[in-house]
Amino acid sequence: MSHPFDAPTIIRTKRDGGVLSDAAIDWVIDAYTHGRVADAQMSALLMAIFLRGMTRQEIARWTAAMVASGERMDFTDLRRSDNPRKPLALVDKHSTGGVGDKVTIGLVPVVMACGGAVPQAAGRGLGHTGGTLDKLESIPGFTPELSKSQIRQQLCDIGAAIFAAGELAPADRKIYALRDVTGTTESLPLIASSVMSKKIAEGTASLVLDCKVGSGAFLNTEDECRELAATLVELGTAAGLVTRVLLTDMSTPLGRAVGNSVEVAESLEVLAGGGPDDVVELTLALAAEMLDAAGVDGTDPAQTLKDGTAMDRFRELVAAQGGDLGALDPDALPIGVYTETVTAPRGGTMESIDAMAVGLAVWRLGAGRSVPGERVQSGAGLRIHRRPGEPVAPGELLFTLYTETPERLEAAMAELDGGWRVGDHAPPRGPLIIDRITS
Amino acid sequence: MSHPFDAPTIIRTKRDGGVLSDAAIDWVIDAYTHGRVADAQMSALLMAIFLRGMTRQEIARWTAAMVASGERMDFTDLRRSDNPRKPLALVDKHSTGGVGDKVTIGLVPVVMACGGAVPQAAGRGLGHTGGTLDKLESIPGFTPELSKSQIRQQLCDIGAAIFAAGELAPADRKIYALRDVTGTTESLPLIASSVMSKKIAEGTASLVLDCKVGSGAFLNTEDECRELAATLVELGTAAGLVTRVLLTDMSTPLGRAVGNSVEVAESLEVLAGGGPDDVVELTLALAAEMLDAAGVDGTDPAQTLKDGTAMDRFRELVAAQGGDLGALDPDALPIGVYTETVTAPRGGTMESIDAMAVGLAVWRLGAGRSVPGERVQSGAGLRIHRRPGEPVAPGELLFTLYTETPERLEAAMAELDGGWRVGDHAPPRGPLIIDRITS
Repeated sequence: MSHPFDAPTIIRTKRDGGVLSDAAIDWVIDAYTHGRVADAQMSALLMAIFLRGMTRQEIARWTAAMVASGERMDFTDLRRSDNPRKPLALVDKHSTGGVGDKVTIGLVPVVMACGGAVPQAAGRGLGHTGGTLDKLESIPGFTPELSKSQIRQQLCDIGAAIFAAGELAPADRKIYALRDVTGTTESLPLIASSVMSKKIAEGTASLVLDCKVGSGAFLNTEDECRELAATLVELGTAAGLVTRVLLTDMSTPLGRAVGNSVEVAESLEVLAGGGPDDVVELTLALAAEMLDAAGVDGTDPAQTLKDGTAMDRFRELVAAQGGDLGALDPDALPIGVYTETVTAPRGGTMESIDAMAVGLAVWRLGAGRSVPGERVQSGAGLRIHRRPGEPVAPGELLFTLYTETPERLEAAMAELDGGWRVGDHAPPRGPLIIDRITS
Repeated sequence: MSHPFDAPTIIRTKRDGGVLSDAAIDWVIDAYTHGRVADAQMSALLMAIFLRGMTRQEIARWTAAMVASGERMDFTDLRRSDNPRKPLALVDKHSTGGVGDKVTIGLVPVVMACGGAVPQAAGRGLGHTGGTLDKLESIPGFTPELSKSQIRQQLCDIGAAIFAAGELAPADRKIYALRDVTGTTESLPLIASSVMSKKIAEGTASLVLDCKVGSGAFLNTEDECRELAATLVELGTAAGLVTRVLLTDMSTPLGRAVGNSVEVAESLEVLAGGGPDDVVELTLALAAEMLDAAGVDGTDPAQTLKDGTAMDRFRELVAAQGGDLGALDPDALPIGVYTETVTAPRGGTMESIDAMAVGLAVWRLGAGRSVPGERVQSGAGLRIHRRPGEPVAPGELLFTLYTETPERLEAAMAELDGGWRVGDHAPPRGPLIIDRITS
C-alpha cells in the first residue's frame, strides 16, 4: 500500500481515547515536519491529546520522534580554550514557564563564572508566560541565531551560548508555535515532550528543570506538577542526561518586573549584586544544583554576584552574540511609552498578587503572541511596586503598566483587576523551593 | 480595547467544558470566514466541540452565524415557466451521510416529475461517506457551479438545480472541508449546524432529512440519531422551514454499488424502472414525504419511474448543467481499470455486509479525500454481487473493487476484510425506514 498511516485515522484514534503506536507517532511527527500533515490536522490531534492524555510510552516515543526530526548536537569532543585538556562541564537549566521568570538571564553567567558550560536552546513566550529569547532580544543587536560552529566556539571560549532552537527538533518548533495559538499549551504530555526534545537535542550532558507550581504555572495542581517532574526525569535519564528537578512556587510573579526589557533590567540588578530576594534565591539554588549535576565545585555562586564576575561573563555573552553593551543599563533599555498605573485604594499590606492575572495582563500589553509568528513588544511590561507582605499606604503606587500601543492598556487593566489584594494581614509565605526530585 | 474576543480564549473556554456566548460564536465564525482565525485554530476548536459538546442554544447560534456568513437565497417570488400564476413548491431533501446512498440522484427527478421544485445545495464526500456532487461529477461535463440567475431559471423551467453551496454559508464550506481531514466529522453539533446552515441558506421552503442509523452512520447509536433528528427539526422550524425527518437504516450499504460513477450507473437503473429494492423503497418514501411537506399531490411517485417521466426529467437536469447525455449509460461512465475481487470461501447465505467497512474500503480506493481539496476518483468504487440474505455458491464473486491507482487496492482490501460474513442462515432483516419525526 502507498503508506500505512494517514492523519485522520491517527487523530480519530486519540480522539476516541486510544493509544498511538510507536510507528504511528513516528509517522505523524515526520509527516508534519515535512508538511505532509497540515497545521489544522496537527492542532486537532494536539487538542485530542490535551483532552485524552498520553501514556508514558506514548510521551517517550513522541519525544524521541521530535528529537529525530532534526540533529542531536554533541559537544563531548570540545575542550576549554583556556585549558585544552579540560572537557566542558556541560549543563543546562529549563523552566516549565512562569510569570516574571527572568532567572535564566542571571543564572547562566553565574554558572559560567563557576566553571560550567551552558549550551542553551532557549524558547520564546508561550501563552501567558514570557520566553527567554523574547526578553534577551530587547537588548539592541542581540541575536540568538547562531550557527553550529559559533555555538561550539562560544562554549569553548566563554562557556555559554543562548540560541534559538532553529534546526534542533524542528517538529517541536512547529508544534510549539501551534500550541501557543490553539489553546493546547497546558498539557502534561505536550509540555514534557516539548521541553525534553529540545534539551536532548541541544547536546547538554546534565539538566536541571525548574517545575513551576501554583496559579501562574501551566498545570494547576501540585500533583500534576509532580507527575510532570517525574516524567521529565524519566525522559532525560532514558536519553542519557543527568536530570534533576526543583519544584518551585509560581503563585506570585517572580521579582518586581514582568515583561521583556523590564525583566532584563531586573536581571542586571541581580548581576550587580542586588535585585529582589526571590529572584536571587532561585538563581543561587538552581546554580548550585546545576554545578552539582555537572560535577563542578570550588566556586561559591553567591560570590560571583557580589564580586562582579557573573556580570563580566554576562557582558561577554551579550557581546559574543552581537548585543549592544551600551544598552546594558536599566535606563537605556527600550520601554513602552504608553503607561497606566494602579494605586492603593486603602492602606494596609499587599496580601497577594496572582501570577496568572499578571501574566495575562502583560500578554495583553504586547509581551506575548495571539497569532503565530507575531512580533512581541520589547517595551511591554509591568512593574510591581509593592510585593506580597509589603506595607501599603493609601494612594500609593502599586503597579505600572507599559506598552508601545495604547489601545492595549484597557484590556490589560481588566486582566489585572481582581488579581491582587490589599488587606490588614501579612500573608503567610510558603517556601519558594518546594521540593527536589531526582531519578 | 481593540476587540473583545480572541481565538485562544474561545478555544480554551470550550476545551474546559464551558458554554460559548452568542457574541463569541458570532465573532469566531465571522473571523474564521474572513481569515482572521487560522484553520489550525478552528480545527482545535472543532475537536474541543467534538469532545465537549454544545448546548441546543450554542448549536442554534452557531448555525445562524454560519447562515449569516453568506447570502440566504429566496425563491418565493418565482413562478413556473409553464404556468406564470403558479408559485414553486420548493422542497429539498438531505441525508446525514451514508454508504452507497445515491438516492438523491433518482429522487430529485421523481419530485420534479410530480410537480415539486428542488433547490439543492449539495455537498461533497465527508469521511467514509460519498457526496452527491462527487458522484454527479463522474458524468462528463456536468457542473454544479451555477450562478444565482441560472439556479432561478432552472427552478422555473425544469423544477430543479443541484449546485455547489459556493457562497452560501461560506463559513460552513470552510469548516466542512476542515472536518473532513481533522477527524471531527462525527459530532452531533457539527453535523446539525452544517446541514441546516446550508439548507436554510439555499432558499428551500420545506425540507425532508434522511437521518442514518447504524454502523455506516456518523453517529453510532439510535439514541444519538434521534437526538440529531430532534435538533434538526428544531433548527429548521425556527428558521421557518417545514422540516421532517425519516430515520433510516444504514447498517448495510444501500444497493449494490458504492463509489462515484458506479452509483450514478445504479441510479440510472432505478430511473429506468429497475434497480435494487432498497434504493427504490427509500427513494419513493422520501419522495412521498417531500411532496406532502410541500403540499403537492396528484402524481404517484412510483409511476414516474415506471413510465420514464423521472428519467426524462433527470436528462433535462443533466443537460441543463452541461452533462454529456451520451454518457448516461451504465457502460459509458468512467470506471477504474485496476480491479480486485473477493470470492466466496464457502457456500451458504450472505449474512451481513458492514456499511462502515465498505465505506472505508471505497474511501481507500480513492472515492474520498484524505487531505483538503484532494481530487476524488470518478472511477473508484465497489460492486456488491451478493447482498445480505442472498444465496452464495462456493467460489462465487462477492465484491469487485475498482480504482484508477493500483497501489490503493491493498489498503482497500484490508478495510473490507472482516466486514462481511457468509454463513448458514439468512439474517433477520429490520425495516429500512425506522421512524418518522416531525415537529
